[in-house]
Amino acid sequence: MALKFTRVALVGKYQDASSASAAQPARELMTEIGTFLQQQGCQVSLEDRTAASTGLTQFQTLDLAGIGAQCELCVVVGGDGTMLGVGRELARHGTPLIGINQGRLGFITDIPLGDYARLLPAMLAGAFEDDPRALMQGWVKREGACVFEALAMNDVVVNRGAASGMVELSVEVDGHFVANYRADGIIIATPTGSTAYSLSAGGPLLHPLLPGLALVPISPHALSNRPIVLADPGEIAIEIVAARDASASFDMQTLTSLHRGDRIIVRRSEHRARFLHPQGWSYFDTLREKLHWNKGG
Amino acid sequence: MALKFTRVALVGKYQDASSASAAQPARELMTEIGTFLQQQGCQVSLEDRTAASTGLTQFQTLDLAGIGAQCELCVVVGGDGTMLGVGRELARHGTPLIGINQGRLGFITDIPLGDYARLLPAMLAGAFEDDPRALMQGWVKREGACVFEALAMNDVVVNRGAASGMVELSVEVDGHFVANYRADGIIIATPTGSTAYSLSAGGPLLHPLLPGLALVPISPHALSNRPIVLADPGEIAIEIVAARDASASFDMQTLTSLHRGDRIIVRRSEHRARFLHPQGWSYFDTLREKLHWNKGG
Amino acid sequence: MALKFTRVALVGKYQDASSASAAQPARELMTEIGTFLQQQGCQVSLEDRTAASTGLTQFQTLDLAGIGAQCELCVVVGGDGTMLGVGRELARHGTPLIGINQGRLGFITDIPLGDYARLLPAMLAGAFEDDPRALMQGWVKREGACVFEALAMNDVVVNRGAASGMVELSVEVDGHFVANYRADGIIIATPTGSTAYSLSAGGPLLHPLLPGLALVPISPHALSNRPIVLADPGEIAIEIVAARDASASFDMQTLTSLHRGDRIIVRRSEHRARFLHPQGWSYFDTLREKLHWNKGG
Amino acid sequence: MALKFTRVALVGKYQDASSASAAQPARELMTEIGTFLQQQGCQVSLEDRTAASTGLTQFQTLDLAGIGAQCELCVVVGGDGTMLGVGRELARHGTPLIGINQGRLGFITDIPLGDYARLLPAMLAGAFEDDPRALMQGWVKREGACVFEALAMNDVVVNRGAASGMVELSVEVDGHFVANYRADGIIIATPTGSTAYSLSAGGPLLHPLLPGLALVPISPHALSNRPIVLADPGEIAIEIVAARDASASFDMQTLTSLHRGDRIIVRRSEHRARFLHPQGWSYFDTLREKLHWNKGG
Repeated sequence: MALKFTRVALVGKYQDASSASAAQPARELMTEIGTFLQQQGCQVSLEDRTAASTGLTQFQTLDLAGIGAQCELCVVVGGDGTMLGVGRELARHGTPLIGINQGRLGFITDIPLGDYARLLPAMLAGAFEDDPRALMQGWVKREGACVFEALAMNDVVVNRGAASGMVELSVEVDGHFVANYRADGIIIATPTGSTAYSLSAGGPLLHPLLPGLALVPISPHALSNRPIVLADPGEIAIEIVAARDASASFDMQTLTSLHRGDRIIVRRSEHRARFLHPQGWSYFDTLREKLHWNKGG
Repeated sequence: MALKFTRVALVGKYQDASSASAAQPARELMTEIGTFLQQQGCQVSLEDRTAASTGLTQFQTLDLAGIGAQCELCVVVGGDGTMLGVGRELARHGTPLIGINQGRLGFITDIPLGDYARLLPAMLAGAFEDDPRALMQGWVKREGACVFEALAMNDVVVNRGAASGMVELSVEVDGHFVANYRADGIIIATPTGSTAYSLSAGGPLLHPLLPGLALVPISPHALSNRPIVLADPGEIAIEIVAARDASASFDMQTLTSLHRGDRIIVRRSEHRARFLHPQGWSYFDTLREKLHWNKGG
Repeated sequence: MALKFTRVALVGKYQDASSASAAQPARELMTEIGTFLQQQGCQVSLEDRTAASTGLTQFQTLDLAGIGAQCELCVVVGGDGTMLGVGRELARHGTPLIGINQGRLGFITDIPLGDYARLLPAMLAGAFEDDPRALMQGWVKREGACVFEALAMNDVVVNRGAASGMVELSVEVDGHFVANYRADGIIIATPTGSTAYSLSAGGPLLHPLLPGLALVPISPHALSNRPIVLADPGEIAIEIVAARDASASFDMQTLTSLHRGDRIIVRRSEHRARFLHPQGWSYFDTLREKLHWNKGG
Repeated sequence: MALKFTRVALVGKYQDASSASAAQPARELMTEIGTFLQQQGCQVSLEDRTAASTGLTQFQTLDLAGIGAQCELCVVVGGDGTMLGVGRELARHGTPLIGINQGRLGFITDIPLGDYARLLPAMLAGAFEDDPRALMQGWVKREGACVFEALAMNDVVVNRGAASGMVELSVEVDGHFVANYRADGIIIATPTGSTAYSLSAGGPLLHPLLPGLALVPISPHALSNRPIVLADPGEIAIEIVAARDASASFDMQTLTSLHRGDRIIVRRSEHRARFLHPQGWSYFDTLREKLHWNKGG
């Protein structure tokens, strides 16, 4: 079978310093999967941090920018968190990703470790389901200047401080005033993020192909402040009207100590992350599995 | 000011037989608004049922199909229900509608009776906000044959019978199995319908420009059966798996006595209703007003 | 070990006429459990309908009233539905019940069929957890006269008809006006019923020992019409203000064709059903199991 | 009319240092109401902090403990926050409170400033509705020792830190394990607190006479982790299983920097605050007014 993807990158779960002892299994796993890909005819590059944490030297190493520039496919071994992090970086390059999951299956990483040898060959040959996912660009503006900028695949969250009562947030969409929210905070979620924190806060599930974002107030004072799904393209601006202490998080990258008057701006990015799944994959199968539907509950 | 709309239709609230005494004010109102439109230079046609119920003879009469074929604009005097009904009929013709409200302002009919003389001239001259609204086409299929067909601007609702416990409904989207729902029923709502029954059942608000539909289970047995917003285009099929008695409603047009195996099919229509609002109108202003946001609650 | 309960009744799941073939396993099961109880030293009576449906003649037969009058304990073999039905009948007699479950464990019937021989002896000797459950008395009053009366262990539900839009219901508690609800209906739930329909409609879980009832509107038009937990004792009156068609259900016993002006009255009963569980039983263990908490979801 | 309450205390809204200029109206108001009470035949004591902030010297001054020991009634001029604070202090003494509200009516302070002269005489003579409210006692225990103790009239809240992801909390009731919650936090609310933060987080309304507490998870990861209403008496223990940072608040008195293993213990207090309302008062009237029910929404 002819290969659709020849230059393939391999990324492992980011190890934190405290789990040095976890490097050994990762080392063996990366070697095994990298060798498997070479046997399929691929030229394999190992992501530089994965190479550093595992000590592997037999593969070419590339940083994520290099992977984006030079590779046609990126195989990620880890959970949804790792996959989302790598997907965020590669979105501007359009590099597709395949996720192999060591533990419990995720919403995105749906190839169990024991099944990759069976499932990857067909995918490398071009038989797969394409699953593009929207990203958001976000900024924090203070007195007109941009003091923070980040991409987010899941959500942008504006939050009250830990011991500070409600925040009051004023929301505009494309310059139109939406409402003042008195709440614990507000979540702006992509379809990908709609199964994460947003769901816990009462937000709806959004199908990945829906060109929209959910605006979900967290524990709002007014009971009629229900989640709204906004259409692309639209620029959402959240201004901090009153708060003793507030923060903004972009996929868990957090900026604290926000001030009254600070504005958080969110827009759908022009880039998308692109995840590949084995043929026959359906988003609804994943949803059903992860949310325990039809389990006789 | 040159007229953008010359041929203008006028439709009044449909009178039910029991309120014959209500015809008189409607008669005067239609005369007044029709005359006003003529003074602006419009050729005015009165909808035939409105003409019949008011007894007015000084305007040309047309049925809704004729209005769609011949008029450039339709002015509706009534509430959201009347507006949605007329909008549903005119969608295939693309005729825009303006709503004048006799009572409490609605989500769509936002020109108070006292303000039309001030607001209509600019709108007739072409200064307005355009507010296109999606419709759904729905079918009920039994043993392969179509036994019912209708358009819906708000929602398609599949419901258990009054005294019959839960229904079990199997949902597919574009041929992909979504889930079996044990519930009181399921609502498929357009953005327009997202502020109606769907909202009461826990569904999200959808911005009118969002190209999607909300699938909202009603009192589902499984607590994780949360509302899903699906992307256009998609064909939603709801099959009745088990029920002593069930019904399907398309904007309140109801088909009862559904059987096990009956399938309700819903798709976004290729047509849209087109509502016009005075310049400066914003959907969020209406939302805030109707949902009592920022009322110190 | 001395027996605490000597006169013991045995009740099987009510067979419906259509499942005559199911009688055989029930016959063997009743014989087996009845014989086991005799071996423990109990005098066993078989409920008359169970005797009729199984054709068993070796045990004394008693109807439920007779069981209530003469037996010290009632062993029920079936699911939660059977247990609640029998519990409702025996509540006025104070007869305790033990539930043996043939299928998936219920909220109340928590002794698996395979475990009864191991668990019953200690319980017959007096080692058990007592789990008293409140009941409601309900009436439907029309023009001052009582036209229906029933006990309910789960809930009293006032509902709109299948194809009839919302109902409008006016609620009073102890003569104090609570609110007019425009909704699909209202549920009054006991703690036992709080894990049933009420939960699907958004009601809270109520601990069985809580002396209160939940008033839960079903898909209410006003988003602030949230569930209320009322304190015992209190008389709840629900009056039908407007409806094309409405019904009232008392644990699924349904009275249809309710009229404008009809009043449904609900009060906590002076009687309680009394369920017994093996020692160490905890309500929270059941809740966790049935609601799939802590399943990594 | 004979006085039922002769020794009456007067408390004003606590002034914060920044609003010194607000003292003047408060001074006049306290003088006016104090004089009115004297004219009714009462012996009036002014709370010492109110005396200090207004500079008034014509009334005897007492601290809250002295008021509890010596006065038969306490008239509070302020909002719900002030009323709850004073009620919490006086609960151990059983001193009843009447609330006069300068601004928007509260859930508890329901006598508008303009109406006190009309309403108080009958209440002073013994014609009133009694509205007892439960309190909670709470403790924070660390390695067996109590490191914090407080009373709460509204709620005890255990919360994640501002930028720290979810907390994991293990809950026990009377020594029975309830569940591990992964969430933003947990609220334990009295009936009084059930209309405050708990309501925003999805908790039910609890009637003030209900002898129970609501346990409400905040944005829980598991969708089936629904609010539970627990029966009195019960000791609720919340243990911090995992958190980078957590805090506990008792009616807004906050203890930050909680550790893994810290336990927050909550029990219904043996004392109750006692609020008095004009004759004819009904809790449901207040609920309807404050939650904007029946406003045509």
